[in-house]
Amino acid sequence: MRKPVIGVMGGSEATTKVAAMAEQLGKLIAERGWILLNGGRNRGVMAASARGAKEADGTVIGILPDTTTARASPDLDIAVVTGLHDARNLINVLSSDVVIACPGSLGTLSEIVLSLKHKKRVILLGFDDEGPELKKYHKRGQLTRAATPEEAIEQADAVLAEADG
Amino acid sequence: MRKPVIGVMGGSEATTKVAAMAEQLGKLIAERGWILLNGGRNRGVMAASARGAKEADGTVIGILPDTTTARASPDLDIAVVTGLHDARNLINVLSSDVVIACPGSLGTLSEIVLSLKHKKRVILLGFDDEGPELKKYHKRGQLTRAATPEEAIEQADAVLAEADG
Amino acid sequence: MRKPVIGVMGGSEATTKVAAMAEQLGKLIAERGWILLNGGRNRGVMAASARGAKEADGTVIGILPDTTTARASPDLDIAVVTGLHDARNLINVLSSDVVIACPGSLGTLSEIVLSLKHKKRVILLGFDDEGPELKKYHKRGQLTRAATPEEAIEQADAVLAEADG
Amino acid sequence: MRKPVIGVMGGSEATTKVAAMAEQLGKLIAERGWILLNGGRNRGVMAASARGAKEADGTVIGILPDTTTARASPDLDIAVVTGLHDARNLINVLSSDVVIACPGSLGTLSEIVLSLKHKKRVILLGFDDEGPELKKYHKRGQLTRAATPEEAIEQADAVLAEADG
Repeated sequence: MRKPVIGVMGGSEATTKVAAMAEQLGKLIAERGWILLNGGRNRGVMAASARGAKEADGTVIGILPDTTTARASPDLDIAVVTGLHDARNLINVLSSDVVIACPGSLGTLSEIVLSLKHKKRVILLGFDDEGPELKKYHKRGQLTRAATPEEAIEQADAVLAEADG
Repeated sequence: MRKPVIGVMGGSEATTKVAAMAEQLGKLIAERGWILLNGGRNRGVMAASARGAKEADGTVIGILPDTTTARASPDLDIAVVTGLHDARNLINVLSSDVVIACPGSLGTLSEIVLSLKHKKRVILLGFDDEGPELKKYHKRGQLTRAATPEEAIEQADAVLAEADG
Repeated sequence: MRKPVIGVMGGSEATTKVAAMAEQLGKLIAERGWILLNGGRNRGVMAASARGAKEADGTVIGILPDTTTARASPDLDIAVVTGLHDARNLINVLSSDVVIACPGSLGTLSEIVLSLKHKKRVILLGFDDEGPELKKYHKRGQLTRAATPEEAIEQADAVLAEADG
Repeated sequence: MRKPVIGVMGGSEATTKVAAMAEQLGKLIAERGWILLNGGRNRGVMAASARGAKEADGTVIGILPDTTTARASPDLDIAVVTGLHDARNLINVLSSDVVIACPGSLGTLSEIVLSLKHKKRVILLGFDDEGPELKKYHKRGQLTRAATPEEAIEQADAVLAEADG
């Protein structure tokens, strides 16, 4: 059996607070024995979550938009070099069993929307509001919010348990 | 000089009212001498806008997610067969000089967001609300709303004139 | 009915002789009323075939690997901006009714091979040899050779007539 | 430091002999502590090489052309689900430090050619001939042949040592 893959989305620019949250999230994902998948670059939520996972000896796979690893986080175990620019976002979504999104900008929002389109369970970590457009997905339970990394992990755990059962 | 390319986004399911609006939009795009680009399938806003453009002898290019033309609208002049599933959305966005979005679902929303990310001017046609997440782009003038196809065309015209000037 | 789309492949570096051949090929494609599809850049066989087609008032569609039109041939009618790097080669192949390949390097060879894989009829124009690996496709009639643009056009015509009939 | 990634290409149909060779290759890759990357499906060289690597407790990453894992080999550690059809071949090539190709058909040949285009070192395992088109890459040392999995591994080792040094 393959280990669960948790897709961590989020801004390539991150405040200190968001970066700390993403790092803690990465650490908890690794401690559960799950694989962390993200966009692979050495910036923002990508870099922070990868660093957290490596601190806990986890496995990190980065799906890079670039044609080389020049801009890759040093904490990746596997760099998937796509050369596909933002078209690689589809890969991030399709390859994840659960998606956890940290605050970000348009790139993050487009990944959240694409995840919902492809019927993935999405957990919004540290968001104030998910917007009315997404509210109906909240109502259907496809989208939930978590205040802390610990809470996000608990929600992910429940999703994975249900998928298994 | 290449003719302007207007990307028309919108749901693959469309109400009669939205389909009529998309058809009229396609007609007006063709009458201006612009090229209409859409997702190419024979459904919803894609089929309606293509049909409208052909009624006015316009040029329609469809960027299909499929590996064949089996599901293509009969009104395409050129079927770009990508085999890339939703990753083809990046092509729709990057290839358009202006994006006009008709009401749709998650696919449409993800294309709107991707368009904003890639600095495209987006015109929302027939939307009631664009959501708070997108409101700041409204404020910056990157995103505007139009109540009718005619109004959308006027806005697109102004964007193209500015880009030219 | 959509007009036939002829994919023209070939090197981004071209000798004067190959460029002249590609230009003549583009002209003949346009004179037949077919659409010319190529890789879109302002170099080698791409630029020459586009120029030839425009001289005869044809329609040229370029499938660019880039995220902008900065490197596009001035003779494109439609620039499809993919941002997908060499992954866009799949689009070139799938979107063409017939593929005509002019001499080139590895990029051209990979497109020839991909075309054969996707059951496209391939015409090699101005090649001395197609290599033993490809010889069996020659035997099956999926791959033919033409010495001149005129001969390539005749072969393409026969392929299209057969597909129609 | 990331572990080296060895891309194993080859046919989705494999003879018993080729499958045995691919399985042994996978085993040897794992024993070296390298990561095996392949196309991920449960067929031919992909399935055999993944099985071999898992027998030796290695790590296998599969880059699937599909939108789901329904056709994935059971021996993958990580399934990268691309939804990109053959456009995913670019990812296989760009993500590999060395490419080892087992006998296959057009898909394999197109990956060999794409690998050479992107300056990857390619090792042909168990091929009788590489064709005149590729002979010049042989001469330049970018393409070599190996008669056995053991020999292929030795060659890969030398390539990686040189890249490191």
